[in-house]
Amino acid sequence: MVDKLNRFKELLAEVFDLNAAAALLGWDEQTYMPKGGAEERGEALATLSRLAHIRFTSDEVGALIDDLKPMVAQLDPDSDDARLVRVVERQYRKLVKVPERWVSEFARATSVAHHAWIEARGRKDFKHFQPYLEKNVELRREYAGFFAPYQHVYDPLLDDHEPGLTTAEVQAIFDQLRPQQVALIREIAARPPVDDSFLRKPYPEQPQWDFGVEVITRFGFDWNRGRQDKSAHPFTTSFGLGDVRITTRFEEHLGTAALLSTMHEGGHALYDQGYAPSLRRTPLASGASYAVHESQSRLWENLVGRSHEFWEHFYPRFQAIFSTYLGNVSLEQFYRAINKVEPSLIRVNADEATYNLHIMLRMELEIALMEGSLSVADLPEAWNERMRDYLGLTPPDVALGVLQDVHWSGGSIGYFPTYALGNLISVQLWEKAQADIPDLRDQIRQGRFDGLLGWLRENVHRHGAKFEPQELVERATGSKIDPQPYLRYLRNKFGQIYGLLA
Amino acid sequence: MVDKLNRFKELLAEVFDLNAAAALLGWDEQTYMPKGGAEERGEALATLSRLAHIRFTSDEVGALIDDLKPMVAQLDPDSDDARLVRVVERQYRKLVKVPERWVSEFARATSVAHHAWIEARGRKDFKHFQPYLEKNVELRREYAGFFAPYQHVYDPLLDDHEPGLTTAEVQAIFDQLRPQQVALIREIAARPPVDDSFLRKPYPEQPQWDFGVEVITRFGFDWNRGRQDKSAHPFTTSFGLGDVRITTRFEEHLGTAALLSTMHEGGHALYDQGYAPSLRRTPLASGASYAVHESQSRLWENLVGRSHEFWEHFYPRFQAIFSTYLGNVSLEQFYRAINKVEPSLIRVNADEATYNLHIMLRMELEIALMEGSLSVADLPEAWNERMRDYLGLTPPDVALGVLQDVHWSGGSIGYFPTYALGNLISVQLWEKAQADIPDLRDQIRQGRFDGLLGWLRENVHRHGAKFEPQELVERATGSKIDPQPYLRYLRNKFGQIYGLLA
Repeated sequence: MVDKLNRFKELLAEVFDLNAAAALLGWDEQTYMPKGGAEERGEALATLSRLAHIRFTSDEVGALIDDLKPMVAQLDPDSDDARLVRVVERQYRKLVKVPERWVSEFARATSVAHHAWIEARGRKDFKHFQPYLEKNVELRREYAGFFAPYQHVYDPLLDDHEPGLTTAEVQAIFDQLRPQQVALIREIAARPPVDDSFLRKPYPEQPQWDFGVEVITRFGFDWNRGRQDKSAHPFTTSFGLGDVRITTRFEEHLGTAALLSTMHEGGHALYDQGYAPSLRRTPLASGASYAVHESQSRLWENLVGRSHEFWEHFYPRFQAIFSTYLGNVSLEQFYRAINKVEPSLIRVNADEATYNLHIMLRMELEIALMEGSLSVADLPEAWNERMRDYLGLTPPDVALGVLQDVHWSGGSIGYFPTYALGNLISVQLWEKAQADIPDLRDQIRQGRFDGLLGWLRENVHRHGAKFEPQELVERATGSKIDPQPYLRYLRNKFGQIYGLLA
Repeated sequence: MVDKLNRFKELLAEVFDLNAAAALLGWDEQTYMPKGGAEERGEALATLSRLAHIRFTSDEVGALIDDLKPMVAQLDPDSDDARLVRVVERQYRKLVKVPERWVSEFARATSVAHHAWIEARGRKDFKHFQPYLEKNVELRREYAGFFAPYQHVYDPLLDDHEPGLTTAEVQAIFDQLRPQQVALIREIAARPPVDDSFLRKPYPEQPQWDFGVEVITRFGFDWNRGRQDKSAHPFTTSFGLGDVRITTRFEEHLGTAALLSTMHEGGHALYDQGYAPSLRRTPLASGASYAVHESQSRLWENLVGRSHEFWEHFYPRFQAIFSTYLGNVSLEQFYRAINKVEPSLIRVNADEATYNLHIMLRMELEIALMEGSLSVADLPEAWNERMRDYLGLTPPDVALGVLQDVHWSGGSIGYFPTYALGNLISVQLWEKAQADIPDLRDQIRQGRFDGLLGWLRENVHRHGAKFEPQELVERATGSKIDPQPYLRYLRNKFGQIYGLLA
């Protein structure tokens, strides 16, 4: 039996290595690869993914799962080995249901759809993208069919990102969230706007980079096991516990963009650096889910990085470094500016109070497309209608509307909700960490983050993907994913900033 | 049959992709990888190499070779397809003779030997390395045995680097070379030494980098299909025709080191960028051999980059940029300095006139070790004896003597001769290119290299690994590998510089 477990781990380690290699090829593609390498890079990535898939879904892995199940039934159900077999079985049973033929067709269709989307967005012409999106939706409906029977056609897609979570659960959460976020935004809109003009300046790049590096070093980012580079779109990637990389970018018209991006990706990276060493080279050396991963980035970016306490510590230095623009700006003015709420058209630029509404809109549309109750042809109008309802805005064109995100062009459906769920989880963890560490805010005021990081390591990071997201959140906070802490947080924070408390 | 050829190419393309991925992992390891990534990187590289090896040596590849041979017998023997089957068959027949058991043992032994070598070199203690080198030699003798019967026990090792070349052929070449190079060096040693003190200065790094970039851009390096980074040891690597990368390094005490390194690696890279597109993603998209590859780096570094014509064009700008040290140095003084001949202990720092002697010494010792006529215990003394005979020097310690090179610690035997053969081939090509392009030297005086690059593309690069080195050299120059052009070149060039012509 020990031999079988070792063989099982050996096969999984090979798959891990192939995926790690693919991740490095992806990192390089977005950081240093010369243009001419694109075609061969695509081919190499396809080969690595295919070989990893073939090995993971091999009959040998299936037979080992069957052989190992009786053995691990004897173990502590929370032990690494018991969880490994359980998690791999779940992934395996799902992956073997997807025919090779579909995988190839999906890869081809989404590749051309991605190029069509770039073209359509540039031309602001939804019709150009429509047939490709129709094909992607059709393929995703077929995909869901492989997992029938299901409670809801969206469930299999959601489950790819949030193991064990159902559409009904997420809808129930969002139904609590939506009216209260809409109401809050309306209240804020009635108040005088916050001035953030001093942030919208071309801050010099090197000091921005240096400040971001200083901050995440203080957070606990281990530079011996990671690095930061520049890329067009910031991301985090890792090739094992010893090499976790982030990227950042500068925005000419927003001097705090690189710092907030570095804190966000730094949050993802702290998670990836924090898996227990016993999980290395297994599929458990990974986040519990997309939402849990996003909870880590959001926690460090927003709950820490946009907090008053954080800036009480860092603002004097930040102000001195960027004195050209901040010389006459007080801490209070600065704090209000980086927390400015303003309904806007573009999701990735949205503030904490409006962000989730961008997500709910997208999930509702995805569900309607999957159910067949909305046609792709009617998508732009459905998009604009919800933008008006939730944010009071009408996109002037499709590039600023329905064509703004890359996800659908790549056939990714079921991903968006994880962003909002990550926000909710981040505040649940934050509340519990404060309860467990009464002087947490004082620690942050002193620029100390070891208490918070230690708490996250113990309650979230070290477990990797051993627990499904609902189980992990419940173990860490005492309750499943819950929108109430987030709503309390928004109301307190923005109530204070916008004077709504009365 | 067409289906079988396609399947054959598909399998080879997968192997190519795995090797390309491994090459990127290797590049990253030496350029950007954080220290903490080393262990997992080693594991991922081992997995990729093993999977590539398994796929290449699979029964399916063997069966396809057997099926395809009758078909390609009908084709033009120089056609891509005929050569592909032939080259792959050769590699396949060799690789399948090596048992998996030996591959694993060799990997383990050389890994520990490499660490022992670092330790031994640091401590200047050959005895510490001795048992590990004994093991490596024993494994290499066993390896040679897999290919018995052979003419000489060194043949299978040499053949791994120079397909088709025999030990007897190389010995015959070196026997012509050795006495004449030794005699030349003695004559030079009797002349007044050249002053190169103005090169041995801390030239600022950025202008060195920029100048190197400018020069290889003029050579024809395609930045759309390549890049340059920094690393501790300069190297060239590629992941396909569209992505060929070089690295360089700065040396504090030699202001021209980075430029010459960039020209050297640039020469390798021009070769890798020049394979015919029809060879892409096949084993033919590669150099014909290590020696032919080295001929390209040496040609651009030495025959072009240390030529009088080259500096007639570039020296005025170079002098202006580094005027602190070169302000009062004439072109003639500079030309003599970068061509200074001085017997020295370290191979990698050797000049054109002494370099081959370092190589011949090593090859003779390798042959004696493989034959068993020299024991590892007696190696340091044998080394020192030859150093006295060939270069008139005695290493003060083993770090500056027998332990200076990394090769043996990694079990690499049969590699060294390729450096000297590369030098010889470079001058053969150079003579032929001059014969074919009568105004070649004038073109270089004008900073124009398209004539030379075009000639190399046509006669060397585009063929990739279609032809074995002797065949390629003969096709390009009219004769097989021949030491006489190199000896003529040395005698002319250094005769002039040192006034030996009389």
